[in-house]
Amino acid sequence: MKKTLLIRNVLHDGDKTNILIEGEKIKAIGVADGTVAEKTIEADGMAILPAFYNLHTHIPMNLLRGYADDMPLQKWLNEYIWPFEAKMTADDMCRGAEMAVKEMVRTGTVAYYDMYFNTDKTAEVAVGAGMRAIVSECFFQHTAANVPAYAETLKKWNTAHDGRVRLAIAPHAIYTNTTESLQSMAKIARDNGALLNIHVSETKEEVDNCIRQHGMSPVRYLDSIGLLGPDVTAAHCVWVDREEWDILAERGVTVAHCPCSNMKLGSGIFPYRDAMASGARITLGTDSSSSNNNLDMREEMKFAALLSKVNGDVECLPAPEILKWATQNGAEAFGLNAGVIAEGKLADCLLIDLNDCRMQPCHNLISNWVYAASSDCITTVICGGNILFQS
Amino acid sequence: MKKTLLIRNVLHDGDKTNILIEGEKIKAIGVADGTVAEKTIEADGMAILPAFYNLHTHIPMNLLRGYADDMPLQKWLNEYIWPFEAKMTADDMCRGAEMAVKEMVRTGTVAYYDMYFNTDKTAEVAVGAGMRAIVSECFFQHTAANVPAYAETLKKWNTAHDGRVRLAIAPHAIYTNTTESLQSMAKIARDNGALLNIHVSETKEEVDNCIRQHGMSPVRYLDSIGLLGPDVTAAHCVWVDREEWDILAERGVTVAHCPCSNMKLGSGIFPYRDAMASGARITLGTDSSSSNNNLDMREEMKFAALLSKVNGDVECLPAPEILKWATQNGAEAFGLNAGVIAEGKLADCLLIDLNDCRMQPCHNLISNWVYAASSDCITTVICGGNILFQS
Repeated sequence: MKKTLLIRNVLHDGDKTNILIEGEKIKAIGVADGTVAEKTIEADGMAILPAFYNLHTHIPMNLLRGYADDMPLQKWLNEYIWPFEAKMTADDMCRGAEMAVKEMVRTGTVAYYDMYFNTDKTAEVAVGAGMRAIVSECFFQHTAANVPAYAETLKKWNTAHDGRVRLAIAPHAIYTNTTESLQSMAKIARDNGALLNIHVSETKEEVDNCIRQHGMSPVRYLDSIGLLGPDVTAAHCVWVDREEWDILAERGVTVAHCPCSNMKLGSGIFPYRDAMASGARITLGTDSSSSNNNLDMREEMKFAALLSKVNGDVECLPAPEILKWATQNGAEAFGLNAGVIAEGKLADCLLIDLNDCRMQPCHNLISNWVYAASSDCITTVICGGNILFQS
Repeated sequence: MKKTLLIRNVLHDGDKTNILIEGEKIKAIGVADGTVAEKTIEADGMAILPAFYNLHTHIPMNLLRGYADDMPLQKWLNEYIWPFEAKMTADDMCRGAEMAVKEMVRTGTVAYYDMYFNTDKTAEVAVGAGMRAIVSECFFQHTAANVPAYAETLKKWNTAHDGRVRLAIAPHAIYTNTTESLQSMAKIARDNGALLNIHVSETKEEVDNCIRQHGMSPVRYLDSIGLLGPDVTAAHCVWVDREEWDILAERGVTVAHCPCSNMKLGSGIFPYRDAMASGARITLGTDSSSSNNNLDMREEMKFAALLSKVNGDVECLPAPEILKWATQNGAEAFGLNAGVIAEGKLADCLLIDLNDCRMQPCHNLISNWVYAASSDCITTVICGGNILFQS
C-alpha cells in the first residue's frame, strides 16, 4: 500500500481544488471533498507551486558564508577561501552540508547539484534529509590520478542507493585541467554511467586564456575534445557567444545560471537572449554561500529576472519563464518527471501562504512569487510525497 | 516618567550586552544585568541593528502589485497602471497604504518617504501604525493650480501632528512640469516650511528630452532654476554625470537610489562610483510595489550591493556602506538623530535572529544581514522606543 497525502482547498491554476498524492506522485487533481487519505493538509489560503531544483552548489562552503566579501577574485581565493578550505576536514564538510541542507529545505529546494570534495560522505547528508541530489566530486589536473579510485567509490555508492542521491564527476574547469585530464575524466564518467559537472566561461579572462591556449573559446574547445553531451551540466556560461549557445543546445548540455554569484564576483551579465534563442536547457543555481551568500532560490529567481532587464530589455525573462528555469528545467536536468503540478508527476511541491503581506493582493500568483514574495511565505515543502518542512 | 525598555543579552558590535531604551531614545548601552525596566526583551541569540528608512515609495500602489510586469514602460503605464489608478478612490489609496505599512513594519522599515495623492488621508495610516513618514502630494503641470490649497491643508496637518509624520510637496518630474510650475511649487513649499520630493534622471530618454527642451541635463537645469537644496529629495538619479553629482552634493540634496525598480523597468545602472565620490547623501528606496514588487529593504540592500559590482567592480559598495545608505543616511535625510545603535540616538532598531539558518555561521554579521539573510530573520521592530512588531 502506498501512503497517501491529501492537500485540501489549495489554489492551483486559479482555482481551489483538492490534490491527492499517492506514494511519490501526484495521483489526482480535483478529487472529491470526501476523499480520505492517511494525512491531510488543510491548505485554504495557500497555493501549490513546484519546488525548486538548485542546479549549482558547493554546499559544504556554507561554513564560509560571510567569511570574505567585496574584494577581487584572486585576493578572495588566495587570502581567504583557499586557506580556509585547506583546513576543512571531511567532517567539517559534512557539518557545512548539514547547515546548507537545512537552509535549502526551509527555502523550498528539494534537489541540488553539488560540486565539492569528500562527496561520498556529504552525499549522506542529502539522503538523511530526504532530498534529491547529484553530488559531484571535483577534480583538477593535479588530482586526475585519483579519478579511477573515485569511480569505484561512485559505482558502489550509486548501486547501494536508490538513485534519489547520486555521485558524479566534476572536472573543475578548463583552466584547472589539461585536455588529457578532461578527456580521461569524461571517459571514466561515461564508462561508469556517471554524470559530468564543469564550470564553463564564468569570466572573460577564462575565455581569453582558453583562446590563447587552445585557439578556441571554451564551448568550442570542450566540444572539439568530445566533452559535451546530455550528461554534462555547465555552470555559469556567462561569456558564451550565439554560435556556442547553439552547440550547447545541440549537444543537450544543461546550463546552470547563477546570477547572484556572477554579480557579486563581477563576472559579467548572462547573455539571456542568446541563451533562450538557442533552445538550450537553462536552469538556475545559487552557487555557494560564500559567493551569494545564501541558497535561496526564490531570491535567485528575482535576481535573474531583474538582471536580464538591467540594460533596458524589459520584456526579457518574464516571471513564468524564470520560474520554469528554477523548477521544470531543473527537474528535466535531473531526469525527473517533475517540476510542474500535474497528475502523474513526482510530488515535489511547495505550499505558499497567500495571506502573507508580500503575496497580497494576488493579481498574478507567479508575479508575486518571483518578484514580491520571500521564501518565508513557504509553509510546506514536499519532496516525492514526503513532507520535508511544515511551518 | 518616560517608559523604559530593556533589551537583554543582545549582540551589539561583537559583544553581548544589555541596552536600555528610555522614552524614544537609547539611554544606555552596557547597563547592569539587574537593571529594571517596564518591559524586558530577552534577546539572547539575537543581534541589534538599526531599522530601515525607505526613502522612495508610492505606497498606495501596493494595490497594483503584480498587476502588470515585464513590458515596455509606455505600454505598462498607458494600458495598465494609469487606467487602474484612474479608478482608485481616496479610500482605496488608504487600503493600499495599510497593506504597505503592514509589509514595511514586518520587513524592518520604520520610516518612509512617500509620493502619491490624497496624502492628508494616507498619512493617517502612518500615524496609526506608529511609523515615521514624509508623505508628499504629487503635482504635475496640469494640477499646479491646486498647490496653494494643498499648502493650506499641509500647514494645518503638520501643525496638528507631532512631526513624526509630515506632509510635503512633490513636483512629479521635470518632464511633467514647466519651469514655472516647478518654481511655483518650490516657492510654495519653502514658504510653508515643507520638504520637496521629485523624480530626477530616472531614464536616458528623460535626460535627452531635458537637454533638447532646456539645453541642459536635469540636475543642471533644476539647479539653474533654484530648485535644489537640502530640503529636496531626488529619486533615482541613474543618469547623472560626475559634475552633476558634485552639484547634488554641494546643494545638500538627498538622493534615493532604487535598484530593483531601475532594473525591472530597464532604466539603467546607478553610477555608484561617481555618486559616492561626490559625497552626496545617498539613501535607499524600494519605489512602489508595482515596479519592484515589494517594499523589502533587506532585499533592496542586496540588489544595490550586487548591482554595483555587475560590471566587474567587485569592491564597489561593500556591505557596511549599503547598510549605511539604508539606515544612517536615511535617518539623516529625515533630519533624525538616528540610524545607528548608540547612546542618545533614537531607538529605531531591529532584533535579528542569529539562529536562523541564513545567519549561520556568523563570521560577519553585516555581511550576513546584507547578503544572506531574509527580512524574516527580524524578530522585533522598534520605532522611537515603541515595539511595532514582535514575532
